[in-house]
Amino acid sequence: MMQESDAIERLRGFATDPAARGLADDAALFESLVITHDTIAEGVHFLPADPADSVAWKLVAVNLSDLAAKGATPAAALLSLTISDDDQWDAAFIDGIGAACEHFGLALIGGDTIALPAGAPRVFGLTAIGRAGPSTPARSGAKPGDQLWLVGTVGDSATGLALLKRDPAAVGSLVERYRRPVPLLAAGRALAQHASAMMDVSDGLLLDARRLAEASGCSAALDLDALPLSTAFNAERGDGLGARLFAATGGDDYALLAALPAGFDPLSLSLPSGTSITCIGTVAADGETLRLVSSGKPVALPETLGHEHHGNSASPMAGRA
Amino acid sequence: MMQESDAIERLRGFATDPAARGLADDAALFESLVITHDTIAEGVHFLPADPADSVAWKLVAVNLSDLAAKGATPAAALLSLTISDDDQWDAAFIDGIGAACEHFGLALIGGDTIALPAGAPRVFGLTAIGRAGPSTPARSGAKPGDQLWLVGTVGDSATGLALLKRDPAAVGSLVERYRRPVPLLAAGRALAQHASAMMDVSDGLLLDARRLAEASGCSAALDLDALPLSTAFNAERGDGLGARLFAATGGDDYALLAALPAGFDPLSLSLPSGTSITCIGTVAADGETLRLVSSGKPVALPETLGHEHHGNSASPMAGRA
Repeated sequence: MMQESDAIERLRGFATDPAARGLADDAALFESLVITHDTIAEGVHFLPADPADSVAWKLVAVNLSDLAAKGATPAAALLSLTISDDDQWDAAFIDGIGAACEHFGLALIGGDTIALPAGAPRVFGLTAIGRAGPSTPARSGAKPGDQLWLVGTVGDSATGLALLKRDPAAVGSLVERYRRPVPLLAAGRALAQHASAMMDVSDGLLLDARRLAEASGCSAALDLDALPLSTAFNAERGDGLGARLFAATGGDDYALLAALPAGFDPLSLSLPSGTSITCIGTVAADGETLRLVSSGKPVALPETLGHEHHGNSASPMAGRA
Repeated sequence: MMQESDAIERLRGFATDPAARGLADDAALFESLVITHDTIAEGVHFLPADPADSVAWKLVAVNLSDLAAKGATPAAALLSLTISDDDQWDAAFIDGIGAACEHFGLALIGGDTIALPAGAPRVFGLTAIGRAGPSTPARSGAKPGDQLWLVGTVGDSATGLALLKRDPAAVGSLVERYRRPVPLLAAGRALAQHASAMMDVSDGLLLDARRLAEASGCSAALDLDALPLSTAFNAERGDGLGARLFAATGGDDYALLAALPAGFDPLSLSLPSGTSITCIGTVAADGETLRLVSSGKPVALPETLGHEHHGNSASPMAGRA
């Protein structure tokens, strides 16, 4: 069975243009534009019972999160829309795209509309085009000695999803985090000029941190005790090592992971008020690509670091944008 | 049930940026770039038995056909890839994308990879980015008195599809036209500077000609006797009015339809050798938006002008990119 990583490896064989950044990045840098495309599918990235307007929001937000990670400013988008036999759902979805575009100052400039065969899951794609800032950090620029900072919290969305799987009528801030993630655009712009490397955390912090380390030819050590967890997360899951590993592998966080030179204090930047930014680890030249510690002691890597897509997963909820 | 046109109408409510061209065009014009996105789905735009490399070719070609219609030169693409449980198919598809990108000088610069739930049809998307030429004709610029010219032939692909539906092992030039359409990039570039309006013919000539007339606030009259048909088409379907109406509504042609000022002779342009270009009609200020003639007499419009997507079509092959 082909893994997402196998597919990307095969694509790398010919995606050799510098703009592709070795397909090891959240987005392409095409001249002065940062361009990304994410597709989301029912039963994979959203639940059939999720409200149409929140699915639309999520489609826009997950793409803009990629722009945030590159310090880009959203400019325009193309929508790949599938229409169904449910007019009301489709209309609410389209209106939700409009609301999200308006919220983020994103101009919808094109795309296409198709109908899938009866019974097929809904599939939506968005291409988001952003204007690059003065610098566009890649995933691959982390340097030994850098510190790893996390903007936002982890674990909320995965907890919200777990609540929804238990009770489709669940509500609350954790469910909202799953359904309506917020791309950290202003923080991304502020950090981009100083970060040696940056990416958004969408597939699980551990998997994404390992990707950043791998792309940079370095290793990363994360202190699980330092992970920023929300009060709502703690109330639901507690604060123990198990909860922290759940948060670090849950995915769908749309937090930002930035490697910053040691000694650089991101709190000196003008980040939006209320921004949570936390030093969670360090970059080193060698050693295991990803190492975890808690209470000063090494912690073995969990079997699954996050969500990697693989062909027709038996557990279709495993995938993330 | 929501129609494709209803969905687009609703999207127009907020897609008000000039780059969107009122969502009445094949592609967006974003500064000096022409950008398009088309999604293709198994059972809708291609057959489950179509070879993986030809599906990949078609995905690239249908997007580049949109660039051709705007006179743009292909530059870069982002791929939305779904992986399945069939490694060999997926690998052949990826290699096919590579071959098509190489053929057209298209740099693959990004995209994403997801797995759909088991049993879902394959769905692939491509965002193609082209560099605009000196002028980028819209659909909406046709003027009364213009002549309508068709580059390429119509009916071949729909005939190829009909052959495949009868016999999945069918081969030959008509099947090839269905599976491996060729975007008319050089012709598009040559015509773009002179065309008042241009679009590619993907959903059926009659439907697309009506769209061009509507977008231009004009009417179009087509002479069915003038339609360029291939020898292979004639051999399969004959040359009568029924055959011509089939060709004019079949879709998947990826021909170009251009409105050129009366008296302008496109044969004076340096078109690639072997290019078929035919005057098939005229643009007028008023009258029915689309009128047909044959042997000098009016022909009633057929009930279906082409393929418009509608929610979960009972006839899923009805849709085209």
